[in-house]
Amino acid sequence: MERKISLAHGSGGKLARDLIEEVLLPRLHNETLERLADAADLHLNGSRVLFTTDSFVVKPIEFPGGDIGKLAVCGTINDLAVSGGRPLWISCGLIIEEGFSLECLERIVESLARAAADGGVSVVCGDTKVVERGGADGLFINTAGIGIPIDDFTPGNIQPGDKVLVSGTIGDHEAAVFRAREDLGRKMDLDSDCAPLGGLVATMIPAAPSIRVMRDPTRGGLGAVLNELIERTGRSISIEEDAIPIKREVLGICDLVGFDPLYLASEGRLVCIAPAGEAQTLLAAMRAHPLGADAALIGEVTADPHERVYLRTPFGGSRIVSMPTGVQLPRIC
Amino acid sequence: MERKISLAHGSGGKLARDLIEEVLLPRLHNETLERLADAADLHLNGSRVLFTTDSFVVKPIEFPGGDIGKLAVCGTINDLAVSGGRPLWISCGLIIEEGFSLECLERIVESLARAAADGGVSVVCGDTKVVERGGADGLFINTAGIGIPIDDFTPGNIQPGDKVLVSGTIGDHEAAVFRAREDLGRKMDLDSDCAPLGGLVATMIPAAPSIRVMRDPTRGGLGAVLNELIERTGRSISIEEDAIPIKREVLGICDLVGFDPLYLASEGRLVCIAPAGEAQTLLAAMRAHPLGADAALIGEVTADPHERVYLRTPFGGSRIVSMPTGVQLPRIC
Repeated sequence: MERKISLAHGSGGKLARDLIEEVLLPRLHNETLERLADAADLHLNGSRVLFTTDSFVVKPIEFPGGDIGKLAVCGTINDLAVSGGRPLWISCGLIIEEGFSLECLERIVESLARAAADGGVSVVCGDTKVVERGGADGLFINTAGIGIPIDDFTPGNIQPGDKVLVSGTIGDHEAAVFRAREDLGRKMDLDSDCAPLGGLVATMIPAAPSIRVMRDPTRGGLGAVLNELIERTGRSISIEEDAIPIKREVLGICDLVGFDPLYLASEGRLVCIAPAGEAQTLLAAMRAHPLGADAALIGEVTADPHERVYLRTPFGGSRIVSMPTGVQLPRIC
Repeated sequence: MERKISLAHGSGGKLARDLIEEVLLPRLHNETLERLADAADLHLNGSRVLFTTDSFVVKPIEFPGGDIGKLAVCGTINDLAVSGGRPLWISCGLIIEEGFSLECLERIVESLARAAADGGVSVVCGDTKVVERGGADGLFINTAGIGIPIDDFTPGNIQPGDKVLVSGTIGDHEAAVFRAREDLGRKMDLDSDCAPLGGLVATMIPAAPSIRVMRDPTRGGLGAVLNELIERTGRSISIEEDAIPIKREVLGICDLVGFDPLYLASEGRLVCIAPAGEAQTLLAAMRAHPLGADAALIGEVTADPHERVYLRTPFGGSRIVSMPTGVQLPRIC
């Protein structure tokens, strides 16, 4: 039987990971890639450079709180920011379907340019390809980004008692895209959280000099990211269900269609592990920033050596939050 | 009437240029982008960095002499090389259609990895997106690349008498893709020229210290590239039809379907302008390199201030080679 690519290969979950580890890494093997970081950490004439890329295929391309242009810039800025970097330059590759509205393209480029300005980056190179009608679905955008490190996080220092923080409500982006796609047909006050996180990260670093690690919970959501963060540490993470900030509207959509909010993508949030002694100062610094107003301390690292993520419910129960295996909603970014 | 994107917006010709100048540049305005170079020339902590990107949508994804993986690496390496750079690192963003053969993907990644090794670059970061069946046509690849400058070409010094050289036969790539797509149904010995040019450029630089400028004649072919090179110089270019190396098989396809070989894309060739005094040494150096074996001196810069490209025929006639306006064959890269 011929093996084929499935939608789950493009999720943030297990099959996506398998694709990377079984198809890509064995062929492209090099140390930088094998680190599976959000950004490659490179050395150039004595300077360090961070380099990352992401493609965007979100559907619909315009949604409440953003569009594919804003998303493409924020996604790449955020990968650099959570790697401890200051984002500097962005490339932009467009793949456009023949017949695509030029006015819509103008709006998207406008939005992309505004996000770049907000995020403090310049779009310095680009490329445009057009495919015939039916060859692609409207517009896809790839961005790659270059930044310089402003801090080195120390995931190797993760230890029991370290605190887990999140910078705001989770899942807004995926829920907003779902809402736009399904045309839920009623008024709902829910926008994507899509935003550039460079500024927030820059205020967090001086507040907590010993930050262990950061990630942005995009595909696969908080559940996938916490599982990735605890990998190879010999520790576990325990989070409190009622400490996790989630909007009522997001919970409503989850109830309606059976999504688990822990696996819903955000595009303007970050998750961070910091030593207990720095956690309160860090939380205060995050809350003082407009993009961290709803920041919360949601749990901690434990000595349990199984590298699992446990969710403790308000009723005293506990369940394992595993790495997602399928895909809740394709094409959310 | 709603304005729409057409296939010609993705060509190397006039509409593609209009899209850049009317939609992209006014919104993303910055000096680096406005230079419209093959690679952005950036300054980082006192070091210079070259940065470029290209997306690839070639159809079919496997063709004689290459595939989309090899092409994606060579295209980005070549943009860095003809900018006078040494390519170092490549990013790789995959957009895959649901149902795509995993075995085919493995072949493509294998080929991409081989091209990277041949071209002396490492693939250091990547991203995979999957879209539902019908949402994309098989596989698209974006690569971005980082390099460091090893020479500064001096297009500002272009002057009458300078020689125009090409590193090999032109149009092999587009003709080979056409052949694969149309399934011409007979044996033909014609492969794409797709190859990484970093090594060739590195041998040319010491041979001709005053090289004015280089470009790789991809979309729009030799015709588009010569028109771009002569822009804003106040000079013109005159090339000799019978000096241009073209394979018999490529001419055969052109005769068959009415293509103009001057507008056919190559993916492993470069065009170069150098002072007359260095031209012969440069030509010898190019011919001594495997990827320059068929290099030829095809014309020269003239004092004509109209910034035109003239083609002189063996019969003494002359015609203007204008910037292509349409698109001969979509999705050749």
